[in-house]
Amino acid sequence: MTGEFEAIERLRRMLPSPPAGETWIGDDAALVVPPTGGLLLAADLVVAGVHADLSLVGLDDFGWKALSVNVSDIAAMGGCPTHALVSVAAPPDTDLETLYSGLAEAVAAYSCPVVGGDLSTASQLVVSVAVVGECGPRPPVLRSGALPGDTIFVTGPLGASAAGLAALREARVDDAATAVIDAHRRPVARVKEGKAARAAGASAMVDVSDGLSADLHHLAAASGVGFVLDHVPVFEGATLQQALGGGEDYELVFTATNPGHVAASFAEAGLRQPIAIGRCTSDPGVFVLGESELPRVGWQHQWA
Amino acid sequence: MTGEFEAIERLRRMLPSPPAGETWIGDDAALVVPPTGGLLLAADLVVAGVHADLSLVGLDDFGWKALSVNVSDIAAMGGCPTHALVSVAAPPDTDLETLYSGLAEAVAAYSCPVVGGDLSTASQLVVSVAVVGECGPRPPVLRSGALPGDTIFVTGPLGASAAGLAALREARVDDAATAVIDAHRRPVARVKEGKAARAAGASAMVDVSDGLSADLHHLAAASGVGFVLDHVPVFEGATLQQALGGGEDYELVFTATNPGHVAASFAEAGLRQPIAIGRCTSDPGVFVLGESELPRVGWQHQWA
Repeated sequence: MTGEFEAIERLRRMLPSPPAGETWIGDDAALVVPPTGGLLLAADLVVAGVHADLSLVGLDDFGWKALSVNVSDIAAMGGCPTHALVSVAAPPDTDLETLYSGLAEAVAAYSCPVVGGDLSTASQLVVSVAVVGECGPRPPVLRSGALPGDTIFVTGPLGASAAGLAALREARVDDAATAVIDAHRRPVARVKEGKAARAAGASAMVDVSDGLSADLHHLAAASGVGFVLDHVPVFEGATLQQALGGGEDYELVFTATNPGHVAASFAEAGLRQPIAIGRCTSDPGVFVLGESELPRVGWQHQWA
Repeated sequence: MTGEFEAIERLRRMLPSPPAGETWIGDDAALVVPPTGGLLLAADLVVAGVHADLSLVGLDDFGWKALSVNVSDIAAMGGCPTHALVSVAAPPDTDLETLYSGLAEAVAAYSCPVVGGDLSTASQLVVSVAVVGECGPRPPVLRSGALPGDTIFVTGPLGASAAGLAALREARVDDAATAVIDAHRRPVARVKEGKAARAAGASAMVDVSDGLSADLHHLAAASGVGFVLDHVPVFEGATLQQALGGGEDYELVFTATNPGHVAASFAEAGLRQPIAIGRCTSDPGVFVLGESELPRVGWQHQWA
């Protein structure tokens, strides 16, 4: 057996070290240089068996996902992640090295170092992350700023994660399955796309974590608008139902008054152009896809 | 059953609302005004059955404790908590209102609002908190600054929490039991004491979470010093063993070169004087209490 402090030290060595003037893992709290402008704070946890089936994806994937879903929340504000805190509650026989190897990959991918956290035993694996982000002096993009007439964009086709989970359950190994399985195992937070949308004057933004339909309903409710969608881009190998209700794609949905600014901003950043999928309406009771009403669907935990 | 979003909204109403210019619960991330000077970040989680026996203490106590242990980490840097993120993984039949009522009491006690977080189902209750704190332009008090000859102080007698747990297990109801049971149920983070110690020029500081012996060994190892303790103040109704190894008292242990400054700083803040318990030595292998060696004891999670 290994003591907690030895385990923490072993895991610390898998992660980047602090620059001069900052203190990270090893004291009661971390000391970091605060961003100029607004400070963004987000926290999400992932639970084994709830947010991931560890018989289908690896512990490294789970570690990657834990940070990615948090960085995605910062991206959905148009911000940039700067520091993460990672707290793990896990059964004593958990392979923490594999978990942290995926976490470390995400730390590198997002340039978002882990500066502190906690480690405890528990009966079920829970990885709880909090992320600090910066957004500079201008306000971030909230959910509540969409205006009637604004164009609704999504940063990419949807449904890949849900299709990947289905492919894993069916043990498919064809090429089409590989792409969606990768999307399920290693969701990518769209930090650059969020910054480009904000730079283009996006009026509201949210990440697709619960499913396009549910997340767009959140945005519409917060903004007091309705929406009419012309079409929904579906990832190759996924179904429309997976695109609307699957969630966990972590593409960004945003609204903007001036589509020309959006095109220019994404081009300037060297990013794939976002896809216009519809527009906001002044009637907050209108939720339409094509000819049909689009009900709010998507994953929710249920409470007594 | 209640959906996740309805549950979150119900819990949000139990907590304070943001001032103008800040966005808290309800968007992808919270937007807050960053502190001037250093930004302190800490995260700790509490697991039902590991950090608390819910057959002996209430869910409200558990909610109180989850925030208090985090605020204590900020206090141990000489900082002041400003914002908290609270993520809860819990069985679906968990009484979240009672949990959040204790959390809300702690929010009020420490003036540390909850600005975001997450809520998920799980098989075991885990409350994971991250706290942001400020420390102004001067550096916070790390564990690593103790010097040979520094006096070692503790902000109060120790062992109350462990004695309280023992009293609860024995179902004692006498007056002495009430005081230690209160200390176990509602540990208090010493924010004012931490600020007073820092103002007095404390060279190193740590909170007593794992037990005086273990935490003092952490401080000594980080600072490269040894220590000689003359005595350890034991809370009335507790044993010396509980004071040394029990942990969870959340008193602060700190070192200072000038005891006169410490006395003046605590007096000026209207605080009970801290107790001098010994001094740091230049030999990092010396750990002495009275005539005996003081081994490193205290709680550690164990890993495969």
